[in-house]
Amino acid sequence: MTTDIKAALRRQRIETPSWAYANSGTRFKVFAQKGVPRDPYEKMADAAQVHHHTGVAPTVALHIPWDKVDDYPALARHARDLGVGIGAINSNVFQDDRYMLGSVTNPDPAVRRKALGHLLECVDIMDQTGSDTLKLWFSDGTNYPGQDDVRARQDRLAEALQVVYDRLGEGQRFLLEYKLFEPAFYMTDVPDWGTAYAHCVRLGPKAQVVVDTGHHAPGTNIEFIVAFLLREGKLGGFDFNSRFYADDDLMVGAADPFQLFRIMYEVVRGGGYGDHVAFMLDQCHNIEPKIPGQIRSVMNVQEATAKALLVDAGALAAAQAEGDVLGANAVFMDAYNTDVRPLLAEMRAETGLDPDPMAAYRRSGYADKIVAERVGGTQAGWGA
Amino acid sequence: MTTDIKAALRRQRIETPSWAYANSGTRFKVFAQKGVPRDPYEKMADAAQVHHHTGVAPTVALHIPWDKVDDYPALARHARDLGVGIGAINSNVFQDDRYMLGSVTNPDPAVRRKALGHLLECVDIMDQTGSDTLKLWFSDGTNYPGQDDVRARQDRLAEALQVVYDRLGEGQRFLLEYKLFEPAFYMTDVPDWGTAYAHCVRLGPKAQVVVDTGHHAPGTNIEFIVAFLLREGKLGGFDFNSRFYADDDLMVGAADPFQLFRIMYEVVRGGGYGDHVAFMLDQCHNIEPKIPGQIRSVMNVQEATAKALLVDAGALAAAQAEGDVLGANAVFMDAYNTDVRPLLAEMRAETGLDPDPMAAYRRSGYADKIVAERVGGTQAGWGA
Amino acid sequence: MTTDIKAALRRQRIETPSWAYANSGTRFKVFAQKGVPRDPYEKMADAAQVHHHTGVAPTVALHIPWDKVDDYPALARHARDLGVGIGAINSNVFQDDRYMLGSVTNPDPAVRRKALGHLLECVDIMDQTGSDTLKLWFSDGTNYPGQDDVRARQDRLAEALQVVYDRLGEGQRFLLEYKLFEPAFYMTDVPDWGTAYAHCVRLGPKAQVVVDTGHHAPGTNIEFIVAFLLREGKLGGFDFNSRFYADDDLMVGAADPFQLFRIMYEVVRGGGYGDHVAFMLDQCHNIEPKIPGQIRSVMNVQEATAKALLVDAGALAAAQAEGDVLGANAVFMDAYNTDVRPLLAEMRAETGLDPDPMAAYRRSGYADKIVAERVGGTQAGWGA
Amino acid sequence: MTTDIKAALRRQRIETPSWAYANSGTRFKVFAQKGVPRDPYEKMADAAQVHHHTGVAPTVALHIPWDKVDDYPALARHARDLGVGIGAINSNVFQDDRYMLGSVTNPDPAVRRKALGHLLECVDIMDQTGSDTLKLWFSDGTNYPGQDDVRARQDRLAEALQVVYDRLGEGQRFLLEYKLFEPAFYMTDVPDWGTAYAHCVRLGPKAQVVVDTGHHAPGTNIEFIVAFLLREGKLGGFDFNSRFYADDDLMVGAADPFQLFRIMYEVVRGGGYGDHVAFMLDQCHNIEPKIPGQIRSVMNVQEATAKALLVDAGALAAAQAEGDVLGANAVFMDAYNTDVRPLLAEMRAETGLDPDPMAAYRRSGYADKIVAERVGGTQAGWGA
Repeated sequence: MTTDIKAALRRQRIETPSWAYANSGTRFKVFAQKGVPRDPYEKMADAAQVHHHTGVAPTVALHIPWDKVDDYPALARHARDLGVGIGAINSNVFQDDRYMLGSVTNPDPAVRRKALGHLLECVDIMDQTGSDTLKLWFSDGTNYPGQDDVRARQDRLAEALQVVYDRLGEGQRFLLEYKLFEPAFYMTDVPDWGTAYAHCVRLGPKAQVVVDTGHHAPGTNIEFIVAFLLREGKLGGFDFNSRFYADDDLMVGAADPFQLFRIMYEVVRGGGYGDHVAFMLDQCHNIEPKIPGQIRSVMNVQEATAKALLVDAGALAAAQAEGDVLGANAVFMDAYNTDVRPLLAEMRAETGLDPDPMAAYRRSGYADKIVAERVGGTQAGWGA
Repeated sequence: MTTDIKAALRRQRIETPSWAYANSGTRFKVFAQKGVPRDPYEKMADAAQVHHHTGVAPTVALHIPWDKVDDYPALARHARDLGVGIGAINSNVFQDDRYMLGSVTNPDPAVRRKALGHLLECVDIMDQTGSDTLKLWFSDGTNYPGQDDVRARQDRLAEALQVVYDRLGEGQRFLLEYKLFEPAFYMTDVPDWGTAYAHCVRLGPKAQVVVDTGHHAPGTNIEFIVAFLLREGKLGGFDFNSRFYADDDLMVGAADPFQLFRIMYEVVRGGGYGDHVAFMLDQCHNIEPKIPGQIRSVMNVQEATAKALLVDAGALAAAQAEGDVLGANAVFMDAYNTDVRPLLAEMRAETGLDPDPMAAYRRSGYADKIVAERVGGTQAGWGA
Repeated sequence: MTTDIKAALRRQRIETPSWAYANSGTRFKVFAQKGVPRDPYEKMADAAQVHHHTGVAPTVALHIPWDKVDDYPALARHARDLGVGIGAINSNVFQDDRYMLGSVTNPDPAVRRKALGHLLECVDIMDQTGSDTLKLWFSDGTNYPGQDDVRARQDRLAEALQVVYDRLGEGQRFLLEYKLFEPAFYMTDVPDWGTAYAHCVRLGPKAQVVVDTGHHAPGTNIEFIVAFLLREGKLGGFDFNSRFYADDDLMVGAADPFQLFRIMYEVVRGGGYGDHVAFMLDQCHNIEPKIPGQIRSVMNVQEATAKALLVDAGALAAAQAEGDVLGANAVFMDAYNTDVRPLLAEMRAETGLDPDPMAAYRRSGYADKIVAERVGGTQAGWGA
Repeated sequence: MTTDIKAALRRQRIETPSWAYANSGTRFKVFAQKGVPRDPYEKMADAAQVHHHTGVAPTVALHIPWDKVDDYPALARHARDLGVGIGAINSNVFQDDRYMLGSVTNPDPAVRRKALGHLLECVDIMDQTGSDTLKLWFSDGTNYPGQDDVRARQDRLAEALQVVYDRLGEGQRFLLEYKLFEPAFYMTDVPDWGTAYAHCVRLGPKAQVVVDTGHHAPGTNIEFIVAFLLREGKLGGFDFNSRFYADDDLMVGAADPFQLFRIMYEVVRGGGYGDHVAFMLDQCHNIEPKIPGQIRSVMNVQEATAKALLVDAGALAAAQAEGDVLGANAVFMDAYNTDVRPLLAEMRAETGLDPDPMAAYRRSGYADKIVAERVGGTQAGWGA
């Protein structure tokens, strides 16, 4: 069984986001860190480090326009030379001044057209980079009751989604993201999985829901959503991060490792492991160093996955069938309580990796190198 | 315009629940009150009082088996004689000892059969009473991770719903209720509107979602759900009550009257007012007297409705189209800030009612009468 | 170091509550279980089983009037003969019909006198049983804004607490419990630690705060409160349980084992381990068997404690001093991620216990025995 | 009675914050608005508009270093010439790069010294401007468990507060603000009122707690805190704003006007109206125009205050004493449901103001004037 688990873990693919290597922060302050990339090429180099040491992070998500370049095929080649590939394309319709009252749901049709144009441009970039996934997150919403018409905004949203959907090529899909609040504070236009799901069902198989683990109301049982969407064939992937309060965007697994295990268990249970369900990180390393923050996050996902794979399915099913509450829970917890770090270290060693990616990165000298080399220029951040 | 609003308010129908007249409480204590009904017939008499004084509460929801009688047509006639009718039939699959681990989602097929039998019996009672609505709430869920299989439970739920759906006659429908938690504390099988919606869409037009205003995670924007479900043609009705924390089951409008106004606004805006969307109360009068508690609740819904009808749609649309954030909000708030009590008093007087239902009930002497008359027997409660 | 940790774990004392062995449930249903005790003597016998198999649960908390007996010294002797002792005395001022609007904060002075009388009676029982701790939880509060005067209720609370405080004998203390909501749904009179703390400071050293881990608003950082109260010398103990949503009263450590670890870490860090800070369980085993539920809970506390003791204090302090965010977190997580079950098994074996208390209990046949023997009579529950 | 209420309303003083006139936003985007001030002098001019039209906003809070000027007495004179005065001085120890891991609680003593220096500088500015109030909010906290030592941070906090306290002159005080989270996401060093209270009690009468209405966990009963702090003599004032989710910083009264009424009722009830309790606004006008946003907010506070003053204290006390739940609630709600806008319009007219401040501002042409005049330079924002 351990052999099977190690094999399954070896096959795992965790995508890191280009923006995780850039500066990020809160509305109060963005603390700049030394050695941060100045352009998408340098972001790729940093992402390649994460893959180099973990072996399971072979792709990098782009964020447009933050990662806008003149020559996307060149960027893709650059990435390939570093050992990584381009992953999902993330659209951004929240940073232009005209989006103050929304993008595709804006009451002003001119703004809606502009936003839609951007989304279509992102599909163009998919064509140029070979990316098969478009991630759609809309910051659209309202701050005050009555500010805009809830239903009219849904109509506008549906219209835009249809145009983008129709533009998708063979083998391309989009993932629709939902979020309870922030930056809109009264209502968001896609606040929950139900809204995203209903739109995706109407559109067809190329539209799927993406679950950002930080985008729910307090108390939401996220693994239920995962199980439900898998049953419906509508789970497209994850934006992983963790939170204690709101969309804190901390390292995945840092706030509630047990929840992450439960989520990964439902992925495995529901047949979502190893198929099209994308495991993507989406975090803000506000105070911790970026590359180690990503390595740690990748490892946290691996550990949760290993534990999920360790669950004794037979014993669990037997206890569940008997209505043995404590027995079933004990089988489940036995896997969670197991220390899987030795297993993962072994798996890494078997594939030629250092068993301790954090230590290996530290020893590599890369951190000092980028601090020394990346002098001058403008550091990348959420705005660029 | 005032004339139209009064006409619309006159047409409103708010259903009161039979169990609101019985004793209810918390897990800590059920405080018995004097004069509480001992059987469904006495509950009808109390409900008739609410209608007598408000003029807008002509139906009473039943809860089976709490309102089990030998002769339902006789109960319906009794109600009719008192001036009220039988409303929705509420199933109860949570109080038999065998439902400890669930009803229709129970791992034990024998328990599932029993539960399904009860649901079908409820449809029989609809046939006998002429009720057109079945309300389905499942307390099903689990308390511990791993306790049962999330997905298998969905399969069982879907199977049971299909059987009930197929049994529905011409002009009958069921409303599927969702609830985040309680009495299950890790996972409920229908935790949110999305789950209820997905099942209902799959089943067909006779299956709709019912929104209990106390069944959401903190921070959930309920009026968004209302607007969305109306747009999808899947809003069946409301279980009204209010809450500060969890499913507190306080009088509707008592905790957040502004929220109730926003909900009613979306009902009106989405065309749900005056059609099949059912306005039902579902509350626990733990410490306040039952009948006045229902009268106050009915009046609270009326006041929120009146304010919703007062919103100047033209001015609102104009401000929204211009992106005038403060202007649109001001139009909205102007309606909310209006004191509609005089309008409602006038409307009542015009229809021959006392303008002040609370005072009229107090003066009627009914409260003293039931305390004096209802001596001996066993008071009705959640268990009977 | 392992030797020290095992020694520390051997010294741990976890108190189980008499009511955990009785039936409990939700407002929807109390599912009765076979073999449940019919009186305080049988509860003691069950509690003794938990201590017998775990070795760290030597005392049992009483709840008055649920555990009212004619001869407390006899009950104490009975317990002693079974190998356990009487722990904290828990007052109950929430189940008499007169407490509907509160006990010590009730607007009616006669009700307040009655409640105060009960509290003083509990101190009498302390004298008779040798218990040194009185636990005060007040269900007092209001359901509706305006229902009663917030400040007057504080005055009444302060008055009652003063009388009880003054009645405490040498070596006796009381622990004041706070709770955000339930059964009161608008306001509780002791909603948070700050309120409990302020009253206790005013009263003096014999008044301390007890932290029930299920009594907080969503998102509350409980371990911060623990650290703060320890710094102030005002942490009296814990009522352990766990929750996903509200006061779910699940087995401690079942919902968020990482949180339990963080709490235990702050206890250890703040010098609260091994002194007067009481570790008490307070749970509802609604669907799981009672005695195994308690054994599992005791083991969960032990595992969290073991992990807390494993934290490398020196390495942690060094990383913290350097501002090494990821390094400090890694030291902390290293302890959490360690599988401490072998260590605990070893510790048990060294003290002559079975290394697996759950299996030992199962093999003992006690469960079958009580089902067979406890026939007839009335099972104990929250009401008795 | 109406006369008394109008007199009380005329005496009300609501302080507006200089930063409300500057650009603000979320971490996703700060949308710049035309006509926004470029320096503290222009902020004063805008604040003077709010006072000019409402008559109850005579002071402006400063934020240091955002409002740093060379000559504070000159700024104060400039304000006075415009008809307003300098209010509270708000310290800022969250925007320097060195504060990444905290200010006064930072593990690095050099950073702590720097932060303390800033706080003392703020007291100097109080001396120079004649301000009697220092507002202390610390963004200090940690993002990851184990990152720093919770208790050591409390020690450092206490040390810094003591130094500042000792520096306060005759007639000066500081208000300590608490906040559950953001920008720190695991633990904040002053997360709740209890923490702020405990520090203030230890320090003495010049230290008081300030309640920011957006800084609580979901479900927190803020008016209870208000009542409790008033009873303890420790309520220093409010930072008013409103929220649906987290610290949304919307216009006060916009999200839950009933809550604002309940808060103002407790202020009045507890004797906090008209004494030293400061009513201050602290909001982010991210999408609405700034000056009208402030005017509306001031009016919202006035309306809530008017309703609070309208509560029939005698009738309420009588109903409360009788335990008449619905009666007491009805007295309370009667005040809330009253439309107080005519009363306020009358009061304004009687004091020579336009009865409709929003319309008067609109007509004044000031908005166009500042757009036309404030061309060039750098708009003020949270960073400057």
